[in-house]
Amino acid sequence: MEKIAASIITIGDELLIGQVIDTNSAWMAQELNKHGIWVRHRLAVGDVWDDIWQALDDESRQSRIVLITGGLGPTADDITKPLLCEYFGGKLVFDEGALANVRHIFENVLKRPMIERNLKQAEVPDVCTVIPNERGTAPGMWFEKNGVIYVSMPGVPHEMKGMMSGYVLQALGRHFTLPAISHRTLLTAGIGESFLAEHISRFESALPESVKLAYLPNYGMVRLRLTATGADKRSLEELVQTQFDTLKELVAEWMVIDEDLSLQQAVGRLLKQRGRTIGTAESCTGGYIAHLLTAIPGASEYYNGSVVSYANGIKEKVLHVDPETIEEKGAVSEETVREMIQGALILLDTDYIIATSGIMGPDGGTPAKPVGWVWIGVGNREKMEVRSFRFRFDRQRNIELTAVNALNMLRKFIWDTTDAAQ
Amino acid sequence: MEKIAASIITIGDELLIGQVIDTNSAWMAQELNKHGIWVRHRLAVGDVWDDIWQALDDESRQSRIVLITGGLGPTADDITKPLLCEYFGGKLVFDEGALANVRHIFENVLKRPMIERNLKQAEVPDVCTVIPNERGTAPGMWFEKNGVIYVSMPGVPHEMKGMMSGYVLQALGRHFTLPAISHRTLLTAGIGESFLAEHISRFESALPESVKLAYLPNYGMVRLRLTATGADKRSLEELVQTQFDTLKELVAEWMVIDEDLSLQQAVGRLLKQRGRTIGTAESCTGGYIAHLLTAIPGASEYYNGSVVSYANGIKEKVLHVDPETIEEKGAVSEETVREMIQGALILLDTDYIIATSGIMGPDGGTPAKPVGWVWIGVGNREKMEVRSFRFRFDRQRNIELTAVNALNMLRKFIWDTTDAAQ
Repeated sequence: MEKIAASIITIGDELLIGQVIDTNSAWMAQELNKHGIWVRHRLAVGDVWDDIWQALDDESRQSRIVLITGGLGPTADDITKPLLCEYFGGKLVFDEGALANVRHIFENVLKRPMIERNLKQAEVPDVCTVIPNERGTAPGMWFEKNGVIYVSMPGVPHEMKGMMSGYVLQALGRHFTLPAISHRTLLTAGIGESFLAEHISRFESALPESVKLAYLPNYGMVRLRLTATGADKRSLEELVQTQFDTLKELVAEWMVIDEDLSLQQAVGRLLKQRGRTIGTAESCTGGYIAHLLTAIPGASEYYNGSVVSYANGIKEKVLHVDPETIEEKGAVSEETVREMIQGALILLDTDYIIATSGIMGPDGGTPAKPVGWVWIGVGNREKMEVRSFRFRFDRQRNIELTAVNALNMLRKFIWDTTDAAQ
Repeated sequence: MEKIAASIITIGDELLIGQVIDTNSAWMAQELNKHGIWVRHRLAVGDVWDDIWQALDDESRQSRIVLITGGLGPTADDITKPLLCEYFGGKLVFDEGALANVRHIFENVLKRPMIERNLKQAEVPDVCTVIPNERGTAPGMWFEKNGVIYVSMPGVPHEMKGMMSGYVLQALGRHFTLPAISHRTLLTAGIGESFLAEHISRFESALPESVKLAYLPNYGMVRLRLTATGADKRSLEELVQTQFDTLKELVAEWMVIDEDLSLQQAVGRLLKQRGRTIGTAESCTGGYIAHLLTAIPGASEYYNGSVVSYANGIKEKVLHVDPETIEEKGAVSEETVREMIQGALILLDTDYIIATSGIMGPDGGTPAKPVGWVWIGVGNREKMEVRSFRFRFDRQRNIELTAVNALNMLRKFIWDTTDAAQ
């Protein structure tokens, strides 16, 4: 079966001056991949006529599908539409459906008067199929030329996602005969990429040719993904499942979860399954662990609340940490973290508490307690586990690593403390 | 003066299957831009020999600088190093400095035994200049061929950043005669991109040719950036400053800050200048506003703490919201948010409080209070301002939009309530 390759072209100077991080491409690649389309290239070009033209020429030589985002806005630097019109030899005409949509959005959603510039958004080349945009004013455009499909979409992420999910993926599925694809992913923590690779090297080299193993390291965790591509979905799934079972046994010691979930999703599911609740008492992580937990839909089933006790006064007044403990041992100490857990268990009335206190940098370090020095604790009413860590990165990454290690400590703590009882 | 163009090539299947969001390129583009290097292309390719080779050929025809990240890890799918070795006609040799660094990192930082695979990281092509990696085991490599500079760096963000800041940017500055560049950026909120464009269209079309205006929209805010490129730094700065002063006057009504800062940085600075403190009482934002505030170094000067009162019991017990208010008006109501502010002002002992309560989705909506419905309040001991919003996006974006609007409400509230007193 022919492998269908796609290129993603993102247009906009903002991508080349680094003002904006391109999250669209990653999402698009994931969706295409799930549908059996192989992303061969991702390219970002500026709002420069010749560069965009050249990119269309180049990518259409390599890929059967060229997805384009950006440059469809109402301002002068948005040149994608006139360029595509010329590239495909059309002329701009008003599209009735797109015009009605622009009017609808201004009247009913934005509730703002419309200006001339906004109406222009309903113009499209007469040689394209218009893709409706239910989430914004700029319509998408579908072109075909010499057997290559070109799709132009807005750069606004939720507008692009709406178009991809509601139209483009199905249309590509109808247009091409796509191969079947099967993925299985697991998440490990507590082992480095090279050690993991060494540990499973024999497994990796014995994999059948149609199955590929990918290492996806992130924040002290490594995701392992098996992917098989072929003609028959069912036999592929069986093939991947067999290999996945072997892999799971091999990495059992470090496995967090045998699905493509984040650590916080895995923790959330575990709490839900056990019918337990959680709260956090955060100093140095400043609410970030609470945010990770509450970013998951349905978190209210197991998450009660948090106290971010940034100032020492809040540690004392709200969490009832003994002022003497802070005076004698410091806010960044095992003792303070223990008292934070005790106070929060009572205040937030949960089964488990995660607590953190540390120095995230860039300032505030001392020889005894340098930047990156953190105490993390997890506990319930019977037991606590408190450990120190030393991270060596910038503030943002130190916060993220503290959160990841805290969630992983909690996950293990729940396993260790409830296994016997369940 | 010749414009020096750069291409950024990121290597790794994880970028093409969408498992990883590429934050490296944006950072690199920003840094290059600041140094007067124009990023022409950003390209992501998989761990495929021919595709990487082709990308090196293609990009070196277009750019004088080709920066490459990724594919330097210790696992089998990391093929960048042998490929570069062949591309530049060298052979792999052990580098003494890199070897000492690998040993040092395992012995003193990771405190783990080293395996054969790790030692291989110290191998480099004999035709490159080795770039030391102070933050990891894989050294960087600098190649020159036909007047083009190629730099290969690890894909791990903090390792790449260390190499760029500590070596690559200076070396590029020595190698090329770079143009001077001057940027000025301001942040607006509360006006859409097209209205802003209409409002300043005459200003934009009258800009001198060497000055470019960019619109950088993000979460209901639009950043405006003026950039001038030329030979003389000083005259450029004067030129940009003159235009920037005009622009500031034109957008005064919507301007958050006249620097390239985030909204939370602007709020932090305002609090610091006024010597005031802040805390948050968050329901639907689940600690995200606290996280945004504490992600800024030095936040402890003005941020005391937060209560994330996700469960109604926490709203009542910790923030002393009247159970009857929740019973009669609901947790998502103006009245509840007012009581959350009152309770938090006392509990957290701050000058200002931000409070949020809403339905972020995907579930939990009702006809009267649909998904995306949020009450946001800001207040001090004298006054409160509470407003309802309706966001129409996914959970993550609804949380982010709530946080951004809350921070902007606070910013205006501080201006309105302290202007007279100051």
